[in-house]
Amino acid sequence: MKHILILGAGLSSSSLIRYLLQHAAKENWRITLADVNIAAAQARIGKSKHAIAISLNLQDDAKRKELVASSDLVISLMPPALHTLVAKDCVTYKVSLITASYVSDDMRKLHPAALKAGVLLLNEIGLDPGIDHLSAMEMIHEIKDLGGEIQSFESYCGGLVAPEFDNNPWHYKFTWNPRNVVLAGQATARYLENGMLKLIPPHRIFSQTRIVKVKGHGNYDAYANRDSLSYIEPYGIGSAQTVIRGTLRVKGFCDSWQQLVLLGLTDDSYELNSPEKISYRDWLCSLVPEANTENLEQELCKFLNLSKNSKAFKNMQWLGLFEPKPIGLENATPAKALQKILEEKWKLQKGELDQIVMKHEISYLLHGKIKKKAASLVVTGEDQHHTAMAKTVGLPMAIAAKLYLQGKLKATGVQIPITREFYEPILKELKKLGIEFHHS
Amino acid sequence: MKHILILGAGLSSSSLIRYLLQHAAKENWRITLADVNIAAAQARIGKSKHAIAISLNLQDDAKRKELVASSDLVISLMPPALHTLVAKDCVTYKVSLITASYVSDDMRKLHPAALKAGVLLLNEIGLDPGIDHLSAMEMIHEIKDLGGEIQSFESYCGGLVAPEFDNNPWHYKFTWNPRNVVLAGQATARYLENGMLKLIPPHRIFSQTRIVKVKGHGNYDAYANRDSLSYIEPYGIGSAQTVIRGTLRVKGFCDSWQQLVLLGLTDDSYELNSPEKISYRDWLCSLVPEANTENLEQELCKFLNLSKNSKAFKNMQWLGLFEPKPIGLENATPAKALQKILEEKWKLQKGELDQIVMKHEISYLLHGKIKKKAASLVVTGEDQHHTAMAKTVGLPMAIAAKLYLQGKLKATGVQIPITREFYEPILKELKKLGIEFHHS
Repeated sequence: MKHILILGAGLSSSSLIRYLLQHAAKENWRITLADVNIAAAQARIGKSKHAIAISLNLQDDAKRKELVASSDLVISLMPPALHTLVAKDCVTYKVSLITASYVSDDMRKLHPAALKAGVLLLNEIGLDPGIDHLSAMEMIHEIKDLGGEIQSFESYCGGLVAPEFDNNPWHYKFTWNPRNVVLAGQATARYLENGMLKLIPPHRIFSQTRIVKVKGHGNYDAYANRDSLSYIEPYGIGSAQTVIRGTLRVKGFCDSWQQLVLLGLTDDSYELNSPEKISYRDWLCSLVPEANTENLEQELCKFLNLSKNSKAFKNMQWLGLFEPKPIGLENATPAKALQKILEEKWKLQKGELDQIVMKHEISYLLHGKIKKKAASLVVTGEDQHHTAMAKTVGLPMAIAAKLYLQGKLKATGVQIPITREFYEPILKELKKLGIEFHHS
Repeated sequence: MKHILILGAGLSSSSLIRYLLQHAAKENWRITLADVNIAAAQARIGKSKHAIAISLNLQDDAKRKELVASSDLVISLMPPALHTLVAKDCVTYKVSLITASYVSDDMRKLHPAALKAGVLLLNEIGLDPGIDHLSAMEMIHEIKDLGGEIQSFESYCGGLVAPEFDNNPWHYKFTWNPRNVVLAGQATARYLENGMLKLIPPHRIFSQTRIVKVKGHGNYDAYANRDSLSYIEPYGIGSAQTVIRGTLRVKGFCDSWQQLVLLGLTDDSYELNSPEKISYRDWLCSLVPEANTENLEQELCKFLNLSKNSKAFKNMQWLGLFEPKPIGLENATPAKALQKILEEKWKLQKGELDQIVMKHEISYLLHGKIKKKAASLVVTGEDQHHTAMAKTVGLPMAIAAKLYLQGKLKATGVQIPITREFYEPILKELKKLGIEFHHS
């Protein structure tokens, strides 16, 4: 019998846990699901006889170490900053670890120790990062196997609302952590285009977007991710003149969001004075030159060079930013005040489904000719638990867990899933589960 | 005999030390000037028999404590982050301290202990902050003594090049720490205007300037300082509907600087890839959408909506930003790369003089009528040592030191010079030294 320890029973754990419970009998697994909130953990496992739910404060060193030491594999769904704490125990007790998070500097430092312990610390095996790596590497290796040389690599992904529930003028609802959405694009974006390094400072990331067409689903806006350069080496695409990774939004979103950035509503670096008392309208007045409560709409339009009939202006009105309604938060940064009003307006209602959209476009030189390959993935949520986000983040982790426990993953050390050992079996099983790319 | 310990023999210490040496015989002072660089300290004191120069690493706890303990007063010219280290010793050994820096949170925390020890920790007694407090408080108290109620308070200050040496198209040269100049305006500015809180996010601080007229010296551009609100309470001007503090530049500077901000050249939050190899031209290409080395000038003008005949574009050309010249720095942030080229171009040459300009404008209600008071100060440097900056930063500290040692300052605890005890004698003596406000 193999023992799997899952840390965290939050929203993104549903599809991962369902998969593991479904395979537990056949694979002879015992699963321990640990969370600070034991009720949440119990609800996730239901009446399964293959799993137990326990209460765990991750800072309880003795209990955490005991749990890790008695496991064959740990899956961490905790916030990224907490992974290293667990990863260190994993190295000590020679237990492998799976996470869907970016490899942090602290995690990277554990590579030599993990190699020495013969332990796999597998990260970036969710959706983005995760499925993007798997599918991109499959395409890149196919092209290289043919003798092709990569000229251009573009990869985009977005977590959106399913079109039939896209009924607000922003064409967006929160389908994952709202804070991350509000803070997106606050660092300079770096990518390569036509052989040149390109940089976009935060105050213009949402204005320098590009259109990405996904066959059968229409056109999206894409804004550039923070760092597209760091994948050139691991992907082995040093020959490429263009390397861009970006985030997809329904067309029009980015232009409206850019106005919020220009106004200063997304700033997270200082706290507003008395936000519990001041209203959204007062706050907006503070940020618009020459504005007062009477002339706000007019001065805002003048300042942003918008018409009152523009989509961006109407979108701001729809959010309620012009209302004399108190922000009602203590010690809030602008970003937190904005998040509050967005959470009221961009809530995914009961019965509404989300959708994730991913697209890769690769051009390559083969026998002196430029050729193109594209692949796209569109996944719609099943229900409010098994959202597209929960499935596409959780299932790659779950499949990797199964492969590991079956002895089919040989890599050790700190890894991301960019080799055939990972992408071949995982993409194959995802396809069976309905998560399938369309290639063209 | 009283013993004064001065920490730091840098550029800003010249006029302070000259004043103290001139008064040492009469006042019966012995001065110890400590710096990491003992040669710099020796050069400052020359052949004075009232002073000695010593080498000191401020992190040498034993030596620092011994020096503080054997002093009657410490004057710290060290970088602001190091003041608290010294201030703690001052409290321990019951020795008062003078600095020209803003009161940090750490310094503020020492207030109760300093009160208990009966020690004065006097901060913000340079130019800005410093002379601005002294002169503003004198005006505010005069108005209040008449029975007036402050309606509006505006205060501006700038360190500039003297008009006769203003011979570059930016009308600016470095007269103090270049890094601080490059990083200015990188936090949201807050002020009060017509009863409303106003906020300016960093990406538009240099575009939302106002014109400040200084009689006999022309018009300047002023951009808003980080936090004008924090002085409302200490100044006792809660009745004011407008409270703004800002920084002065010669007209035109801010508009050109704003273009550098929009391009992303002032960012200090990430490091450029291989800045030792890439050129300023390449770097600019990275930041302008659609730009390459051939079309850079054209695309930059299109992007910033500038003509090639505009002052801002010509100013960028004059700096050499379009040159294919390597940045030549390892691990530089954009701000550091920009600073390097500015230091070459904005150097105050031998024989050239600086100038500081300060202006207060106060309107107040008296017997039902709105009245106005204005005061301005213009100080030109004497020579390359006794710059206007060194004089206006150093002399208020030096005078405060004399007053303290004469037993004329009674305040204890963490203080800034906003009471009559400070402004009356210090402004009086500054006037004798030629640092005199013109009132209107």
